Amino acid sequence: METCLSQIETARPRIGFIGLGTMGAPMALNLVKAGFEVSVPDRRSLPSIVRATTTICSDIADVAQTSEIIILMLPDTSDVENVVFGPGGIAAADLAGKLVVDMSSISPQATKTIADQLIAIGCQYLDAPVSGGQIGAKAGTLTIMAGGSKAAFERAKPILQALGKSITHVGEANGAGQVCKIANQMIVALNIQAVAEAFALVSRFGIDKVKVREAMLGGFAGSRVLDVHGQRMIEGAFEPGFRIALHRKDLRLAMHVAETLGASIPATEVVEQLFTDAIDQGGSNWDHSALYRIAERGNRFT
Amino acid sequence: METCLSQIETARPRIGFIGLGTMGAPMALNLVKAGFEVSVPDRRSLPSIVRATTTICSDIADVAQTSEIIILMLPDTSDVENVVFGPGGIAAADLAGKLVVDMSSISPQATKTIADQLIAIGCQYLDAPVSGGQIGAKAGTLTIMAGGSKAAFERAKPILQALGKSITHVGEANGAGQVCKIANQMIVALNIQAVAEAFALVSRFGIDKVKVREAMLGGFAGSRVLDVHGQRMIEGAFEPGFRIALHRKDLRLAMHVAETLGASIPATEVVEQLFTDAIDQGGSNWDHSALYRIAERGNRFT
Repeated sequence: METCLSQIETARPRIGFIGLGTMGAPMALNLVKAGFEVSVPDRRSLPSIVRATTTICSDIADVAQTSEIIILMLPDTSDVENVVFGPGGIAAADLAGKLVVDMSSISPQATKTIADQLIAIGCQYLDAPVSGGQIGAKAGTLTIMAGGSKAAFERAKPILQALGKSITHVGEANGAGQVCKIANQMIVALNIQAVAEAFALVSRFGIDKVKVREAMLGGFAGSRVLDVHGQRMIEGAFEPGFRIALHRKDLRLAMHVAETLGASIPATEVVEQLFTDAIDQGGSNWDHSALYRIAERGNRFT
Repeated sequence: METCLSQIETARPRIGFIGLGTMGAPMALNLVKAGFEVSVPDRRSLPSIVRATTTICSDIADVAQTSEIIILMLPDTSDVENVVFGPGGIAAADLAGKLVVDMSSISPQATKTIADQLIAIGCQYLDAPVSGGQIGAKAGTLTIMAGGSKAAFERAKPILQALGKSITHVGEANGAGQVCKIANQMIVALNIQAVAEAFALVSRFGIDKVKVREAMLGGFAGSRVLDVHGQRMIEGAFEPGFRIALHRKDLRLAMHVAETLGASIPATEVVEQLFTDAIDQGGSNWDHSALYRIAERGNRFT
């Protein structure tokens, strides 16, 4: 632990990290392990290992003031808006020449608005949401999808390489990373529903799901979801994992983006409704593979 | 070529093969290559290589009469019903002690009815539909999902091993193989729609699909469909492959089975409707990955 001082000369950029939750804390630690100096805002909830290895600043604006690159890892769009522009937010610091990397999963439209405002005051902006969950965050094996200028991406790259194993610059427009993340979540949700419907059908015929999963894994129906969530459905192991409430948030973002862009996502809309059914039945905190619970009840549409 | 004689003593069972289309012809040839004696009915459409290497019988009943194990590989439920019970069908032969293996993809309910009638006259029955397409049929690498008694499965096994690489006895009830095949087709259809919706969304935002596929393949959205059909969508390569009209047939079977069993398959129903949209737009013979063509037109439901 080191108290928050003015910026120290180092070969590597000093990083400010805001949002030290279940994802952010292990990510910040991976940056420390990779040799970066990391500043974080003082919070009671700060894990002791984070407190022991990073520089503790009094508040968010101080983190921004003393860092060259500021990483955000926050729950939702409104959290990012507050941390950037709210009272005592990072925009209270002098951001000219700095780079903000938002690794949260939030609205692409809001991302574009935030990015435009920061770029207007001479700050670079990269949206770089991740896939891979807490396991990927801990292991430094996240999939990272980045949107923003080539310059912003190249500047962030050494940092992203300490956090993920697959890092793709998907587009030069801010929001492109967020749209790609949303598309990823659509595919995962629909692939889960595919397995849930298939397994519900075979179960009702009296067929053992273990054999079905085994028969299909090597063929054209094969997927990571059939492998991992197919196994969860067999075991009835629906502790998160990735919570249904969070996945529904992503599908609602998808529906909003689709509406804005005039895209047609009818199957995604069905799964959003099924997540809502699950939540109505007390399933907010079930793992998203618990779509199987809804499917196996049967006859929803008749 | 050999004319149809009374059964010759051999160590291996003599096989009758009925249904020598794009799938059946290469499958019959793989049985010849594996050393089985194969009888087929005389047909003008018989590929010359099949004609040259198999025993030609005058009709279907003769094939059944001179074979110990009779394999069916036919387009649809009514074809199987006709070949079994129609005029000059295999039921005209003495089937007692023989084994019928239906490798067509047809209705599980009809399968159960046919199986019950054949079993009542002392014939064994195995439904063993396949996945893997013409490529798998030629290479002998089909995925085979079998339903029927253990005895029927064990008797068919040496034959199935010459045709496929993944052979699973999914259940002891006849129809179990068909239900498993239907479940497989549901997963494939929904996984295609997942990629189609995701790709349509990112494209409208101006993101390159090549990068999105690349970013997602190693992660949780990864699947055989994202790999193979994602590439088709990128290239706009919608020649079959597997025709939309055939895949819709499978989804309609799924809907019929689901209704009978009281299962809920709402996302499958959406994709059946999208296949119908494609067919209405002249897409019967498009590859099933052309669901992307429907998705990229946008705004269907608004």
